[in-house]
Order: sequence, then C-alpha cells, then structure tokens
Amino acid sequence: MMKLENTLMMIPGPVPIAPRVQRAMGRPMFGHRGEEFGAIYDECREILAELFRTKNEVFVISGSGTASMEAAIGNVIGKDDTIITIENGKFGERFCDIGERYGNTVKLQYDWGTPIDLEAVEAALENGAKALAMVHNETSAAIKNPVEEVAELAHKHGALFIMDAITTVGGDTVEVDKWGVDIAFMGSQKCIAAPPGLSAITLSDAAWDAIVDKPPYYLDLKAYRKSGSNSPSQTPYTPGVSLISAMCEALRIVKEEGMEQRKHRHARGAAAVRAAAGALGIELFPKIDKYHSYSNTVTAMNIPEGITDKELRGEMLDMGIQISGGQSHLKGKIFRIGSMGNFTATDMVTTISTLELVLAKHGLVDRIGTGVEAASRELDKI
Amino acid sequence: MMKLENTLMMIPGPVPIAPRVQRAMGRPMFGHRGEEFGAIYDECREILAELFRTKNEVFVISGSGTASMEAAIGNVIGKDDTIITIENGKFGERFCDIGERYGNTVKLQYDWGTPIDLEAVEAALENGAKALAMVHNETSAAIKNPVEEVAELAHKHGALFIMDAITTVGGDTVEVDKWGVDIAFMGSQKCIAAPPGLSAITLSDAAWDAIVDKPPYYLDLKAYRKSGSNSPSQTPYTPGVSLISAMCEALRIVKEEGMEQRKHRHARGAAAVRAAAGALGIELFPKIDKYHSYSNTVTAMNIPEGITDKELRGEMLDMGIQISGGQSHLKGKIFRIGSMGNFTATDMVTTISTLELVLAKHGLVDRIGTGVEAASRELDKI
Repeated sequence: MMKLENTLMMIPGPVPIAPRVQRAMGRPMFGHRGEEFGAIYDECREILAELFRTKNEVFVISGSGTASMEAAIGNVIGKDDTIITIENGKFGERFCDIGERYGNTVKLQYDWGTPIDLEAVEAALENGAKALAMVHNETSAAIKNPVEEVAELAHKHGALFIMDAITTVGGDTVEVDKWGVDIAFMGSQKCIAAPPGLSAITLSDAAWDAIVDKPPYYLDLKAYRKSGSNSPSQTPYTPGVSLISAMCEALRIVKEEGMEQRKHRHARGAAAVRAAAGALGIELFPKIDKYHSYSNTVTAMNIPEGITDKELRGEMLDMGIQISGGQSHLKGKIFRIGSMGNFTATDMVTTISTLELVLAKHGLVDRIGTGVEAASRELDKI
Repeated sequence: MMKLENTLMMIPGPVPIAPRVQRAMGRPMFGHRGEEFGAIYDECREILAELFRTKNEVFVISGSGTASMEAAIGNVIGKDDTIITIENGKFGERFCDIGERYGNTVKLQYDWGTPIDLEAVEAALENGAKALAMVHNETSAAIKNPVEEVAELAHKHGALFIMDAITTVGGDTVEVDKWGVDIAFMGSQKCIAAPPGLSAITLSDAAWDAIVDKPPYYLDLKAYRKSGSNSPSQTPYTPGVSLISAMCEALRIVKEEGMEQRKHRHARGAAAVRAAAGALGIELFPKIDKYHSYSNTVTAMNIPEGITDKELRGEMLDMGIQISGGQSHLKGKIFRIGSMGNFTATDMVTTISTLELVLAKHGLVDRIGTGVEAASRELDKI
C-alpha cells in the first residue's frame, strides 16, 4: 500500500487540519513572553469566548481536554466537597474518576448512549452538592445530553454546573452564559480543527468565588488568570507556542465560515450519516428521548451482523478513510463517524461511499448507491 | 522595523527549531491510536532513555516541564509524606510550591545563584523524608547543583531523589541510573530543540514502589505506564500528536550529532559567553564552589552599570538577537544568554558581537572586538 499521508480522518478528533493551520504551526519559533505571543493568545481567547458564548475570560491550557476536565473539578472541589457526576458514556465516567481524586463523588450512572433521568438528578441535588458535572456531547456514545435542563436544576439547588463541551464548542450550539454554565471547557483537536495538545476553559463569577485553596499546580486557574492579565498577556508556564499559533489560525477559519453556518454544516453532516445508516439498514447506537438528541458532531452505529469491527474499519482504512470504533466495553460493538471540524460535503459522500463499498464486499448491501443517495439529500443543504 | 520571523533566540528556551523539525510538526494530522503514532512515540521514548541514561521507561506528557515537575511530586507524595525541597533559584522555589500542595514540605532556601549547603541537606534528611527534590541546572540563576552528592545523601537516608533535568537532558551530562536518580524529567523546548508543550519523565523501581493512591489524574503515571505498554504504544489521553512528531525529528538530530559532541558544543558555548563576559568586564551572576559549577546551557551575568535591562535587551532585540532577563526579584538585575539546543559557533559569535555593539553604543566597551575575540578562542574548539 502507498503511504501518502492523505488518509481522510472522519473520526471524532483529532480531525484534519487545514494547510493554513499547518503553516501557522510550522513557523519559526518565537518567545512566549513577548508582544507577538500575547497578541496571538489574546486573539485565541477572544474568538473562543465568542464560541463559548460567554463574557467571562477564557484560558488556554497546554494539555488535552482531560487536563481541562481535571482543572474544572480540581479548582472547585476540595476533599470535603461533594460533586455529582453523570455518566452515560466514557467521558461522563471520566468526570467520576476525576471527582473521586478530589472530593466525595455521587455517581449517577446510565448505560452508555441512553438518556439520563432528570428526576434522579434532582433527587441527588436535593442531598446537597457543591457542583454537578455533565458532558454536553458524549463522544463515546454520540448522544447529546440536556445541559440546559440540568444547569437549571443545579442552580435551583445551589450547585455549580460544570459542562464538558469538548466536542461541541465550534461545531454545535453552546450558550455558556445563557444556560448558566459555571465551568465549561473544550479541546483543540475537535470542532475548531486545530492540532491536539491544547484545551480551553472558562469560569463564571460564581465558580471563581468557589475556588479551593490548593488546586493542582499546573492546572491552577488563578495562575492562568493572573498571567492572562499581564501586558502582554501570558500563560503561567511555557505554553505550546506552535500549537497556540495553529489554534489562532484555526479559530480565524471558524470565524470566516461564521458560527451559524458552521453549526449548520456539522448538523447536516451528522444528519447525512444517520440518513445513510437508515438507508443501509444500520442501527443507530444511542437511544434518545425528548430531552436527548443525536450528536451533531459524531454518529455511533451498531456494527452490522456479517462483518467485524476489524473488517469494517480496516477495509475502510485501506481505502483511505479512517473512522472510529467503540471505546471500552463498546469496542467491537459500535463504529463511529465524525462530522467534526472542516469536513466538506465531498468528504462525507466519500466516507459513506466507502462504507457502502466495504459492506457490499461482505454482501451486506443490495444496491450500491443507496447510502450515498440518502446522505446526499441531507448534504445538498450545506 | 522589518518583521522577518528570523530573530535569533539565544534564550534558555524555547530555542529555535530546525526546518526539519518544523516540517515534521506541520505534516498532515494522523491518529494517536495507530501503528504510526506508536512507532514515533516509541522512538521518542527510546532516544530519551538514552539521553536520560536510564534503563527505565520514559513517558512523554503533553504539558510543559512544570507538568512533569508536578507529576514527579504528585505521584509519590501524599498528604502525610514529607518532601525536602532545595531552592537556589526560581525552579527550586517551584518544587517547594508544588510540594506544599501535596504533603509536608521542608524547604532549604539559599540565595538564588549561590551554593546549597550539603551539611544542611544531610541534617534535613536525618529528620526523615520520603523524597528530596532538587534542580540539576537552575536555569534562573545559571548554576549547576551537585546532584550526585545529594542523590547519595538521599539514598543513605532512605529518601527518593527527584531531579529536575529540564535544561540538561540533551545538552549536558545526565546519568540517571548511575547517579541513582529516582525521578527525572526534561522539557521539549530546551536542549533537544523541539517545540514547547511536551515534557518527559522517568521513574526508578523504587519510585514506582512508592507511588501514591490518588495522584493528579492527568499526570497519573500509572496510566502512562499502562498505555505505554499497549501495542501499538499510546498515551492515556490525546497527546500533542504534531508536537510528538516534531520531538521525534528533534531527537533524531540529537542522535545524529552524537551526545558527546552535543555536550561538548553546549559546554563550549557557555564557556564562550563566560570568556566574553570576562573580557568585557561583565560580572558572572552565580557564586560557585567546588560542588557547584557554572551552567553549560545558560549563562547569567549582572547588568553592567551604565545601561538598563530594557536598553540592553531591547537594543539587542532590535538588532535581531533575543536574550533573557532575570526572573522574579532578579528582573532588571541580571541578563542571561542561552547556549542551548542547535546553536552554532556562528550564532554565538553573532550574539556576543551584538552585545558588544550595544555596550559600545552606551560607552561601556573600549575596543570593539574584545568580547568576540575571547569568545572565539572557546568556540574554535566546537
């Protein structure tokens, strides 16, 4: 097989990055304590604040989304505090794992990809908690959780609401201030289509008021706030200068497209995958109800009978398209296609077409073109 | 002034990165769970183990040196444990700040850039401690500390020895196994001349045996060990894929030069700066004794009378050369020139020559060329 470095990545991150972004990353090194870095860092923070839809400050952490997830918990939960974590996928589970390192954790667990129970959430809040943490878009199961409703419940009971928006910021509707999200964070390698290695976080006044004395040092958000207010603005420790340069260029692309169009494109991409799945007789993995919806940035489907995970994904990869499998206990049971970042309608058609070809090879498709046809009807609206 | 993106950075990190490394960083994105990433990650870890001079495993953390510093402490120090920290510069101080977040910290403090007292170290160890942490090369003060002697004292008293080797790995002698260092870590943007945003850490068997139950989640080294043993090898959370790709290329350059030659070149670079300082009547900042030495990767000098920090560094920067000032209370009092990474003899001569020109402009140099002449005598041995 030829190695051309041009595999089309249709996974829920890392996503392909634009040549402009690559060039911004590959520029000669420059210092992180000067005007030039400060200007780039501030531009990132301003555009990110627009994407989070917040008037609060945003900080960029040189570390992946998990670093920001830990910062979210570790800065407000001390050993005597209680945090409620909600799990209906791998990243909800991670909230719980992190919560257990910092305080008392009340876990609400649901089968991955199934709805959470709002009454149970309220019952847990009635017992008292300093914070409640939930994933907006559960990437592992491709289900979107009812953050508005849960934020309201959290506030009704005096708890901070922490939202993992790693796979929605820059690709789906996020309204940090309007929904009353106290801490939200995102990852660079997802919807904004920057390289992996950075994450960003924002805190409400209430969250700042609740900050603990000794958060983890590298993730101490007070230090980020202090350095961020320097002139030129800085980060407390040496940041990934090249990555922040790349992130800035990626965010300019997001701005150029316009957030409304970008959300629309992501939603149409996911709708195209679902339409293709329907036409090809492939079952969607998540079970939704009126409070939950299918993700707009990733779609999870059950692996059809008659083909294995390895065959399905391996043969697509041989044809130049990378998609994702399931994580943890879903490995071998589901596959996932991202509609995330700067993908085009053509990328999506190519992906569906390749999926069809692989399924056809295994005798699982009657008429080649069924999936592409269904997908295209959604995509012509991009 | 023209903005050409070609300022020569002669600071103690980030250092300029080679075009090859830029290209490796700017290549199209690829996934972090595949064979290709695993091979690059393993190559990094193998070369890094050679640079640390250890048979133990090395892990790369997507986070700056401070992240690894926190990992070093947070993985072995719990709230009832005692750690001795030694400060004779900013990074020794940081060890103490981090220690205080995790356990009982016994601080040994010395004026920045002055020798530590080995008898006081032994006395502190006699009171019992789980670990002792010291900086090998204190970048803020350009002094190299007696790690071999202190490692021996630590072991004599049953304490783990933690060494910050951020600005020595890849540029100076580091002998993790021979010296009996239990935890050592380095930063990507220093001597190996990779972009900032990554650090690497290695642990002895004794350190692994001493691991605490609940280290910080993002920096939990058990998770790195587990993911590192996967096939293909992985990191527990999404790493800075582009940065690790760049780090791999930077490490290949280190290997091509050869570690002996690289150490020699760094040492000659620092000797050249010291020789120029002597010829120009500029005082070296650190006070050394038989246990301490001048740094081979950065040189700190007092700012001469008759010129301010702002003038000295600002005018050099206008001429295309970036050097560093002092940190914290040394700001405005010292300036620092790095001899770190892939600098050449020409880079060093250019730097000294520019320094001379600026000093001459302020009437502080009698005969232009004095500094360059002295520096060149050291550099012709590169």
